[in-house]
Amino acid sequence: MILGIDIGGTSVKCGVVSHEGEISHIRTFNTRGWVESIGFVESLRLEIGNYIKDFPGIKGVGMGYPGLLSSDRKRVLLMANIPSVVDAPVVEILNSSYPGIVFRIENDAKCAALGEHYFGENKGIDNYLMVTLGTGVGGGLIINKKLFIGGKGNATEVGHILTSNGKTLERNVGISHLIKFAAEKLENYKGKTLLKGKDITPKVISECAEQGDELSKEIFRHVGFYLGEVMVGVVRTVDVDNILLGGGISGAFDFIVPEMRRKMEEHLPKYYTEDLHVAKAQLGNDAGLLGAAGLIIEGL
Amino acid sequence: MILGIDIGGTSVKCGVVSHEGEISHIRTFNTRGWVESIGFVESLRLEIGNYIKDFPGIKGVGMGYPGLLSSDRKRVLLMANIPSVVDAPVVEILNSSYPGIVFRIENDAKCAALGEHYFGENKGIDNYLMVTLGTGVGGGLIINKKLFIGGKGNATEVGHILTSNGKTLERNVGISHLIKFAAEKLENYKGKTLLKGKDITPKVISECAEQGDELSKEIFRHVGFYLGEVMVGVVRTVDVDNILLGGGISGAFDFIVPEMRRKMEEHLPKYYTEDLHVAKAQLGNDAGLLGAAGLIIEGL
Repeated sequence: MILGIDIGGTSVKCGVVSHEGEISHIRTFNTRGWVESIGFVESLRLEIGNYIKDFPGIKGVGMGYPGLLSSDRKRVLLMANIPSVVDAPVVEILNSSYPGIVFRIENDAKCAALGEHYFGENKGIDNYLMVTLGTGVGGGLIINKKLFIGGKGNATEVGHILTSNGKTLERNVGISHLIKFAAEKLENYKGKTLLKGKDITPKVISECAEQGDELSKEIFRHVGFYLGEVMVGVVRTVDVDNILLGGGISGAFDFIVPEMRRKMEEHLPKYYTEDLHVAKAQLGNDAGLLGAAGLIIEGL
Repeated sequence: MILGIDIGGTSVKCGVVSHEGEISHIRTFNTRGWVESIGFVESLRLEIGNYIKDFPGIKGVGMGYPGLLSSDRKRVLLMANIPSVVDAPVVEILNSSYPGIVFRIENDAKCAALGEHYFGENKGIDNYLMVTLGTGVGGGLIINKKLFIGGKGNATEVGHILTSNGKTLERNVGISHLIKFAAEKLENYKGKTLLKGKDITPKVISECAEQGDELSKEIFRHVGFYLGEVMVGVVRTVDVDNILLGGGISGAFDFIVPEMRRKMEEHLPKYYTEDLHVAKAQLGNDAGLLGAAGLIIEGL
């Protein structure tokens, strides 16, 4: 029995995970609440204690963090959302509180890629890049069935790669930036859009796109355009032709992929694109939690 | 005793390499001459035969090709300069002609990175990217002391990554493009440059830069600017902070690196740049040949 914890800037999701990838006893917490009460690390430590008390079969705890990690996977080096975790000896603190339990940490987007690797329908694929399109934009790369973490441990930070407009991918297509882009475009459309008057979220834009709304479709073409641009460089650098898209925006998969492919085919020779396979990640919001649990399963 | 062969679009350089990395009995051939006489592969086959006859101690032949290779390293998939080699079963042909001898092929820029790894002063470094700045611009990545070839075998094609002006790195800084850039700039400078009237080569520009010529320095800043831009994405993707520069333009190292660093520091957080180490490759023109030989040494 494993405890998986998916840590995000908004919420922390915990769940007991079986070796078959079934999640149960999910508890969700407000990240800010943890930070502003007794502190994030102490809140995390206590909640892990609650789980261990309630489920004595827990042998290990895997955690995904939205930030850069030390190459020895003992601490977080850079994390905008929860600064108090940075440089805290998280694994050491937990080890000394709960001896006998294995603790492992990994970057959240890499956890999502691992989740698909361990439990998704794509687990047979040796090599793929998973891109998580959400508030943040992250990447996880599986090479020869193993997670690629690069030289210093924080590879595939695809959301922070520059695009042709001088902004990073995340600043173009991360959810808050995308909503801002939609709001700006809305003015140009002078009301000829189903988005008018609506509270714009990725889900709403996706629904309107499905009803044929031109602006909504343009918003996702914008995602595909910049995602495709960044993929040109990433594919040239790591040479994979399987790409999985996950995260909050990936629901609009069918509206994003054609432009993404077009951009990649424009700038890459056939070698890279003739077998290019872009698929929707299978595990949805559970990928990160399952991948975090998978860190432990792999070690047992 | 090993035969190393560095294949380029202009020339083919062969040499006998000792296990200590000493090169002897170098023979250089014109690539076009080989292509236009009995064909490239047959010329290569015969010359390898000459070496084996002259040096019966040769146990293996390592070759570097300027192109994309099959993941099993048996054939060339894409090579602009010598199309007749594409899809020819090179390794198979050589194996059946010379049984008992080991043949291995690798991409030329990856050979150069391996050469530095086996024989350069940087052989102690676990992780680095080597960028070859020449007619073409290539990359070779060493991760955990091993060559990283990516999912399908042709990773780190850094010369073909897009820059902010919409052109690839190679189209900005590859030697022929750089000379063209210099010629265009020369008109703007209206004669106030030491380059005026000279036959412009990287060496000449480098010499003029050393004499303080502003245009020459600007040309290398141009190299550093676009190299730095591409490095931002590559470093985000593979997370190394050791970069070696080799190839024909790397003689102007001191004029290229400041702008390259500036660009990287502009777009990367301290995590990536605070220990950034950019060094000049040590083996010069021999890196490719030595790396090709190293393919065999590693296998023996």
